[in-house]
Amino acid sequence: MAVTTLGVVGGGAIGQAVAWRAAEAGWSVTLFDPAIGSGASWVAGGMLAPLSEGWPGEERVLEFGAASLARWPDFAARLRTATGVEVFVADETLTVALDAADAADLRTIADWVGGYGHDLRVLDRAGVRALEPALARTVRAGLLATGEPAIDNRRLLEGLRKACAAAGVQVRAEAVEDLDQLEFDQIVLAAGAASARLLPDLPVRPVKGEILRLRHRPGATPVPRRVIRARVHGRPVYLVPRGDGIVVGATQYEAGFDTTVTVGGVRDLIADAEAILPGIAEYELSEAIAGSRPGTPDNLPLLGRRTDRIVVATGHGRNGMLTTPLTVDAVLGELAGSPLPEARSADPQRFTTTPSASPLSSAPGGTR
Amino acid sequence: MAVTTLGVVGGGAIGQAVAWRAAEAGWSVTLFDPAIGSGASWVAGGMLAPLSEGWPGEERVLEFGAASLARWPDFAARLRTATGVEVFVADETLTVALDAADAADLRTIADWVGGYGHDLRVLDRAGVRALEPALARTVRAGLLATGEPAIDNRRLLEGLRKACAAAGVQVRAEAVEDLDQLEFDQIVLAAGAASARLLPDLPVRPVKGEILRLRHRPGATPVPRRVIRARVHGRPVYLVPRGDGIVVGATQYEAGFDTTVTVGGVRDLIADAEAILPGIAEYELSEAIAGSRPGTPDNLPLLGRRTDRIVVATGHGRNGMLTTPLTVDAVLGELAGSPLPEARSADPQRFTTTPSASPLSSAPGGTR
Repeated sequence: MAVTTLGVVGGGAIGQAVAWRAAEAGWSVTLFDPAIGSGASWVAGGMLAPLSEGWPGEERVLEFGAASLARWPDFAARLRTATGVEVFVADETLTVALDAADAADLRTIADWVGGYGHDLRVLDRAGVRALEPALARTVRAGLLATGEPAIDNRRLLEGLRKACAAAGVQVRAEAVEDLDQLEFDQIVLAAGAASARLLPDLPVRPVKGEILRLRHRPGATPVPRRVIRARVHGRPVYLVPRGDGIVVGATQYEAGFDTTVTVGGVRDLIADAEAILPGIAEYELSEAIAGSRPGTPDNLPLLGRRTDRIVVATGHGRNGMLTTPLTVDAVLGELAGSPLPEARSADPQRFTTTPSASPLSSAPGGTR
Repeated sequence: MAVTTLGVVGGGAIGQAVAWRAAEAGWSVTLFDPAIGSGASWVAGGMLAPLSEGWPGEERVLEFGAASLARWPDFAARLRTATGVEVFVADETLTVALDAADAADLRTIADWVGGYGHDLRVLDRAGVRALEPALARTVRAGLLATGEPAIDNRRLLEGLRKACAAAGVQVRAEAVEDLDQLEFDQIVLAAGAASARLLPDLPVRPVKGEILRLRHRPGATPVPRRVIRARVHGRPVYLVPRGDGIVVGATQYEAGFDTTVTVGGVRDLIADAEAILPGIAEYELSEAIAGSRPGTPDNLPLLGRRTDRIVVATGHGRNGMLTTPLTVDAVLGELAGSPLPEARSADPQRFTTTPSASPLSSAPGGTR
């Protein structure tokens, strides 16, 4: 194929991964971001848990997430080969229940996700304690996903930056104001929550998420070996291991483009984390930071061709790390003229009511 | 007087203030600090509250603090004249009680401190609410000190740096390992908790203190006009106004030279501050930081002449901001050969049991 030019707008994990892989595939790639790698990707936890997060009725989210999870080992191996960077920090995910209702929910998840051929194991109190002895005594049940690992989001960004450089991606530290002014054969819009500034009718909005980064101190409770997920006072909380500590996430607010860390957010994250892992008070609070995640109405990304020249890859919400490999493959498929079937549920036109523009509409004028 | 040379070891508020004023008095001054202004002074709240913190039996601490408070207006005016920097951020201090025992303590303080001629006003619930309507409804009494202001510690450090430069102080960004190797006519040791590394028998130790800096956000409860002090679950907490927010302090631990911010410390500061000012959850948590305060056995500084060549000015504990003006005057007095009577209670030899070295011993071999 003749070399053609590609402009990638947005330098988060997805923009960088697309740029890298497209450059390897022969495209001449320019990546635009005024502050590469500093957005929602920088704030992520790195949990890859589409099965543990499954819930009856959310088939498409489960299938999309599981399809991307299945691509993670290859994606990580490719990055390791290109850069030497290893991104995995845990192998398994353990969701725990503090009350009877949560314990019942774990069974519901295990049954429903099991129906799609994924194996999740329900554990009793003793089973949880055997795996992670430092968890609170109030934990009464668990759900173990042996196939759900976690990655270090900042190592991923470091690896992608190296991979982009090695593959010859040109990085321009500039904001893009107007896609029409970019002179490339193809454009990928991967600007996260800011994508709607460039294509105003994209149904993507900022969802603020705060996280804490904790560092282990001598004498403190050891870092759990697995990702630990739970619900405390109705709020989801997760603890994702790092080499030297834990990432605790995440608050969620509809707050516009606001990335200030609030006192109340930090208070809730600490309280919820401590309810799960009591020894956490002795850790160092090394960082509190917020990001603007790109939310969509149905928690699936906006991923696919928008015009002859523009491919969209945004709206990854809380699951940008998880869905990076499938997104990259889907974008490369679009650029090569062969869209990926697994990405069809994320068609960016799916909310458009004009029948001709909606390939998912089953009948003219139909609503879903 | 002939110009003589002075080496000041330590560039916190006290070291810089001594250097500035000594240079103005005609000394040729060199100030040593590897990271000027980054120690305990950087982490301070800036509360000047010796009266509100009074307690029966602690006469010397009260007298020392009150004597320094009385010197603050002149000290601040001199700094303003030299640099244009204004350091005051509040005019009054309000201590509040959440339960009957605390309310009784406020009366005890008012009576005892009143006996030394200082006027403190006890307020009932309505009186407190009239002054600071945003405080928690659980506040049942208050103690108002109209003469206790607060300063912005970081503005003070900025002002002192300018004043030192204007007065010709030479700043050397170096650590001092051995006082004997400094070739100056006189030396002032003002290295805070690190002073004992240079004079190992000085009874000064690091006391870790964590603080939070909160920034006001649009729509959040306004910043209180006064310093607010309280006790929550037995822990002292204070809220010191800043131009754009509040400093919340402070935890206290005997932790060696450890300035990591702990999860538990942040948790407690937020909980205690929220118990006093419920709207604080909507503030931005802009910084959490810890310092090593120089503690002494009796909560008075170590201030005075140690040898013919060395004057000591350390051990200011939680009150380094408050006690800066008196400390500076005392050090300048020592350098000029006329010690200040108000500083006698802080004599650095007072813990020495050798009778001849202890000017405060009333009888040979006597213990106090």
